[in-house]
Amino acid sequence: MIAHSAELLTPEEVQRVHDASLEILEGVGLLVRNPQAREILTRHGCTGQAGEEVIRFPRRVVEEHRASIPPTFTFGARDPQYDRTLPGDAPVIVTGSSAPNLVDPTNGRERRARSDDIARIAHLVQNLPAYDVFSIPTLADDAPAGLFTLSRLYPAMKFCSKPIRVSGPPEDTLRITEFAYFVAGGEDAYREHPFLTHHYCPVVSPLTMDFDSTGMLIHFTEQGLPCYATLVPNGGLTSPLTLTGTLVQGNAEFLAAAVLEQMVRPGKSTLYSSLPTIADMRTGAYSPGAIETGILFIGVGQMARFYGVPCGGYIGLSNAKVNDAQSGFETALSTLAGVLGDVHMLNMAGLLDALMAFDFGKAVIDDEIAQMLKKVKRGLEFSEENLALDVITEVGPGGMFADNQHTLERMKTAALLPEIADRDPRAAWEEKGALDSQARALHRAREILTRDAPGFFSAELDAEIHKRYPGIVGGEYAPPPGWVAEAPARGRPDRAERHRRRAEAAEG
Amino acid sequence: MIAHSAELLTPEEVQRVHDASLEILEGVGLLVRNPQAREILTRHGCTGQAGEEVIRFPRRVVEEHRASIPPTFTFGARDPQYDRTLPGDAPVIVTGSSAPNLVDPTNGRERRARSDDIARIAHLVQNLPAYDVFSIPTLADDAPAGLFTLSRLYPAMKFCSKPIRVSGPPEDTLRITEFAYFVAGGEDAYREHPFLTHHYCPVVSPLTMDFDSTGMLIHFTEQGLPCYATLVPNGGLTSPLTLTGTLVQGNAEFLAAAVLEQMVRPGKSTLYSSLPTIADMRTGAYSPGAIETGILFIGVGQMARFYGVPCGGYIGLSNAKVNDAQSGFETALSTLAGVLGDVHMLNMAGLLDALMAFDFGKAVIDDEIAQMLKKVKRGLEFSEENLALDVITEVGPGGMFADNQHTLERMKTAALLPEIADRDPRAAWEEKGALDSQARALHRAREILTRDAPGFFSAELDAEIHKRYPGIVGGEYAPPPGWVAEAPARGRPDRAERHRRRAEAAEG
Repeated sequence: MIAHSAELLTPEEVQRVHDASLEILEGVGLLVRNPQAREILTRHGCTGQAGEEVIRFPRRVVEEHRASIPPTFTFGARDPQYDRTLPGDAPVIVTGSSAPNLVDPTNGRERRARSDDIARIAHLVQNLPAYDVFSIPTLADDAPAGLFTLSRLYPAMKFCSKPIRVSGPPEDTLRITEFAYFVAGGEDAYREHPFLTHHYCPVVSPLTMDFDSTGMLIHFTEQGLPCYATLVPNGGLTSPLTLTGTLVQGNAEFLAAAVLEQMVRPGKSTLYSSLPTIADMRTGAYSPGAIETGILFIGVGQMARFYGVPCGGYIGLSNAKVNDAQSGFETALSTLAGVLGDVHMLNMAGLLDALMAFDFGKAVIDDEIAQMLKKVKRGLEFSEENLALDVITEVGPGGMFADNQHTLERMKTAALLPEIADRDPRAAWEEKGALDSQARALHRAREILTRDAPGFFSAELDAEIHKRYPGIVGGEYAPPPGWVAEAPARGRPDRAERHRRRAEAAEG
Repeated sequence: MIAHSAELLTPEEVQRVHDASLEILEGVGLLVRNPQAREILTRHGCTGQAGEEVIRFPRRVVEEHRASIPPTFTFGARDPQYDRTLPGDAPVIVTGSSAPNLVDPTNGRERRARSDDIARIAHLVQNLPAYDVFSIPTLADDAPAGLFTLSRLYPAMKFCSKPIRVSGPPEDTLRITEFAYFVAGGEDAYREHPFLTHHYCPVVSPLTMDFDSTGMLIHFTEQGLPCYATLVPNGGLTSPLTLTGTLVQGNAEFLAAAVLEQMVRPGKSTLYSSLPTIADMRTGAYSPGAIETGILFIGVGQMARFYGVPCGGYIGLSNAKVNDAQSGFETALSTLAGVLGDVHMLNMAGLLDALMAFDFGKAVIDDEIAQMLKKVKRGLEFSEENLALDVITEVGPGGMFADNQHTLERMKTAALLPEIADRDPRAAWEEKGALDSQARALHRAREILTRDAPGFFSAELDAEIHKRYPGIVGGEYAPPPGWVAEAPARGRPDRAERHRRRAEAAEG
């Protein structure tokens, strides 16, 4: 248990960030490109000049509507054992999403992702223990015309029964829910237990609500279906080049989107979701792997607690192109800052090169990091029994704990027993092939991906889907080409194989 | 600024850990193998049976003597600009220490370390900005008989003017101070501004004070020279297999050593320094890279605050054998836990395979992680100016921040600009050689190590040292064999060089 989370702002500073956000909303306002949003906002007391798109949010309007945001948010799953509710189930671990590319696990080359890749990723996420929510991490380059989103959603839902987070372009909005109703056996059945969470980025920083994403957020909110928005201020480019300035502008943007949701449906559950960054001003590079993102998230956590709203976001992304030390420390630093800062949901896993490419090894390594984060959340597990004073007394000065009954009972539970982090002495590690963590992670991915994946759809349902959506892709499972069911033994591989693995590890 | 550090124990639980520690000290006691220590302890109210080595510490004796520990600890430096005082200068970054081996930077092979390696490491640590204190990271295999510690200390002091932490066997105790007096120009001059900090591990868990280290801790305390002790409970082997049990036993051991120091010299500055771990009970492997070490350190930080004593320890070690993702995430997770848990000193850097081998690439990468930790400590840098409301108003909805005067003024200071973490898009990264972070770190090490290193000793002093200590080694600086002054351009290397670097990166 975390008794007190880390804080970078005093209570007075939190209040000031809130007040400054209200000043921005009231004095500067937002450019709202969606006319339906403008209509809703002005109908509830926001103000705008006729013929202009800038809408101002009076303080009392913001305060009134933010007050109706409930303190919890649930990600529902097809299999209800995987339902996750924030903040109680925090940290809720979610894959990163919407990368166009994938690092091909068979040759380490980056290429466009396809629907069969999504099937494999879904199968992997289903079988890695730390993942709570599956946000579909890539696009599907082989999607037929008219089936852009369904060719991502179908393999994801078929091979993963955990909660699924999805987004898609406006033309797919109705198809997504229609598909969900169909799989659930009807609209009523689905609405009783929705298993999709819809996600959009309606605010383009600085202070602009776009047309499409805002429209979709309004749509799903009207429909009473789970949805939320992520804010993405980028200091130096789309927000001020200060941490506090980026925090306050993102906070104003959060309030604007959240207030709009509450106007559409008072009491609607939502998340304070963000991806705050500071650009690398040497080149303008987008830097979500920077330590500044971790620092900003501690501030986001504090603001979310001030509002009583569950929070999260894209945290733990890396700018590394391969799974090297950078990939490890960037993901680790920001995510741990988030967990110790009481951020509840981490869209953390599986991506390299910011949001560009999914990598199977990275997904496996991030699952292990996520297990560690969950262990941190459990804390020191203080109890009189765990103080173990009797055991300390019994063993005594200079004694041995290894063969004590108290020790034997806890050998498998006291500490996290990692599978990727290697603890062999160097000689034993070399004897086993001198594999780095990326090679070990790919070994683990291979072990899972070569298992049978029958999927969670009956043959009848599958047939109905193909009948209803002719040409839909992604429903057949096959291991990556050339990967066979029995993984190579973990003993010393031959020289050529070792060389191949090292090159693979070095090349990503 | 960190407004509130992360806590895993409630105030009541902190009090209970303290009380339980007193129960252990009073009811179980410590096995004290050093007769001088037994004499000091019993003279001040501890109790022991004649002819037995177990000493019990009555509650009031512990409470009385711990009360005189001062709240600060200073690492003095030859060059006073590098003096560092805890907790004000926290996080104070210290290299890891006393590894027998070194990964040869020219071929990636692990071998015994020598005095010329220590000279290079000292030169590197002097030139890497995040390092505050140089704890000599390796032994010197080429030390002549009788000059074991001086052959480490001489190159360290000659090539690094930051504070130096040193330890050595009992037969070297007097030689170390004699050497320091000599370099300082006499005992009085040295005592006015000591630049060595002496470090020992007098407590062998569970609850045993050894003969030699305890004797040396008493010696330096009597001498009024800076020294402190590190506790190393290892859950499942030398302490209970629970986090709380390991914390409480280590805490009792800290109190025992600290109380002994205060009895020798009331008001003596010290550190609550620890290396708490939980063993991997699948193999018994020593696992200082485990997340449990990070979790335990948050508890150590809380206990140290309860006592008003600055704290630190070996935090951020890794069990990885190469600088891969594991090396990155293990070092990152525990050190950030420490910083957010208000741990003041981190012996974090440069070692692989727990405490087995120093690696130049790891030292460079850890310097960058340490820069990030220091940035976290600075926090969100809240101020009215940094809220930047004027700038947000001026830029307005949909505007651009990149060319704003406010942005231009902060381009080099707002965010940490890393040198190892790469933010190029993949194509640009490939064009530059597709170097992973270890390859980039070795490039940086090469850039520093091929610079001229005249050292901080005058020719006269150097000559005197050689006259006084015939055969002493480590005083000549040379880059690693084969490393030339001009580093290869960072452009695309040829195919053979790329292959070599990848193999080097994969092999460590």
